[in-house]
Amino acid sequence: MKRFALNSATTKRWPLPDLVAGCVDAGVSGVGLWREDLAAHGAEATAALVRDAGLTVTSLCRGGFFGTPGWLDDNRRAIDEAAAVGAPVLVLVSGGLPDGSRDIDGARAHVRDAIGELVPYARGAGVRLAVEPLHPMFCSDRCVVASLGQALDLVSPYPAETVGVVVDTYHLWWDDQVWAQIARAGREGRIACFQIADWVTPLPAGVLLGRGLPGTGCVDLRRFREAVDAAGYAGPVEVEVFAEEVWARPGREVLDEVVAGYLTHVA
Amino acid sequence: MKRFALNSATTKRWPLPDLVAGCVDAGVSGVGLWREDLAAHGAEATAALVRDAGLTVTSLCRGGFFGTPGWLDDNRRAIDEAAAVGAPVLVLVSGGLPDGSRDIDGARAHVRDAIGELVPYARGAGVRLAVEPLHPMFCSDRCVVASLGQALDLVSPYPAETVGVVVDTYHLWWDDQVWAQIARAGREGRIACFQIADWVTPLPAGVLLGRGLPGTGCVDLRRFREAVDAAGYAGPVEVEVFAEEVWARPGREVLDEVVAGYLTHVA
Repeated sequence: MKRFALNSATTKRWPLPDLVAGCVDAGVSGVGLWREDLAAHGAEATAALVRDAGLTVTSLCRGGFFGTPGWLDDNRRAIDEAAAVGAPVLVLVSGGLPDGSRDIDGARAHVRDAIGELVPYARGAGVRLAVEPLHPMFCSDRCVVASLGQALDLVSPYPAETVGVVVDTYHLWWDDQVWAQIARAGREGRIACFQIADWVTPLPAGVLLGRGLPGTGCVDLRRFREAVDAAGYAGPVEVEVFAEEVWARPGREVLDEVVAGYLTHVA
Repeated sequence: MKRFALNSATTKRWPLPDLVAGCVDAGVSGVGLWREDLAAHGAEATAALVRDAGLTVTSLCRGGFFGTPGWLDDNRRAIDEAAAVGAPVLVLVSGGLPDGSRDIDGARAHVRDAIGELVPYARGAGVRLAVEPLHPMFCSDRCVVASLGQALDLVSPYPAETVGVVVDTYHLWWDDQVWAQIARAGREGRIACFQIADWVTPLPAGVLLGRGLPGTGCVDLRRFREAVDAAGYAGPVEVEVFAEEVWARPGREVLDEVVAGYLTHVA
């Protein structure tokens, strides 16, 4: 359980004070937070709430969306918020193609340059950026970074201590190259965050809210955990599940099920 | 227009005799068929219908689903049907993971072996097998072959004149490696079929029936056509779109729109 962390998106409707108390009660010591959590409670108050309970913030989601007007200021604010709440890692989801565009190479080049613009600010704040490849079904509207290999190529111009990648089982499980790329990510010192969700079908309309709790789907989650371990990663294992039917349930009930799934299928 | 072909799945509810007459009227000379078309009309009658109209069958969809009981006999029948209808190519969609399985390597190894079992039969029938990588969002339930590079690795033990691959823009557009893999497919003589559909969002529930007609989405379709051409492919360009809203429209109206989209965005 030492490495287990609950990402607050898994229990999206559980108020943060209840989530923190529930984690303490369940013996969970790490939580991954979202900027929405900080917006609701204030960064300083959130930091105090978590710290006073003896918990650690494992990551903050998320910056990115580099095609949005004002992206640079917004990402700097996200870095500030990560620092304020004590999150060592800020997860970046790049955004998709601009409306009406078919220029995927151009969009990807912009992502690379945008990350470069953030590097000095992130370094100054002591926050590590973690570029997340999303499943290719999100390529057009959420994230033009669609595989771990592509993410590693993308971040290669930047220092590994400031820019890493996210390994998320939900997004990467289908890729026959993922094991080689996880090993490469380890060699290159890039694994900044490791997240767990399971793959279940049928996918819902819009495909965003159809993830499965650990053990409910077809992903060999333990193989991923062993692969990142073998690549030298020793950080938190965050469970992050977006699913309407999970959100509808009581937070503590979900947490208990997540912990049980983690122990059976991941640890 | 010489290379253009209409895949009958694009106008799924257009009766085949009407589709054939519509193609002749529109100056379309190639049609890709489905086994359902042959089941409805009989393979010999379908062959005669198409031949007598002066059309060419460009491909037959589909064999595969190698996890299904009876897959070997069923795929041999599919090969026979392709030969009977004069289709040079039988498209193979591998099938997903067995129910309850998390063994994706095992499923992929079975696909490789199953294709090997079909090679002598296909060669004897003069039908080329075309392994189709589907978009990774279908990996668990339809096709464990999820990228062009993986498909090329998979077919590499078998002779290129009997086993090729399908390049389908809908399934492959997100992959930053696709251009290198198309060039490789050309060098290895593997491009057996080239299909076009556009990527549009939001995806519908189940994600099967959300493809876009050429030009309605975000894929640089012409870049794909130029890439397969540069790789030495000189065969048909088949438009294959699965979309409930397209199926609800009159076949001829859809065909005219497909042709217009092809000329503007592909040719």
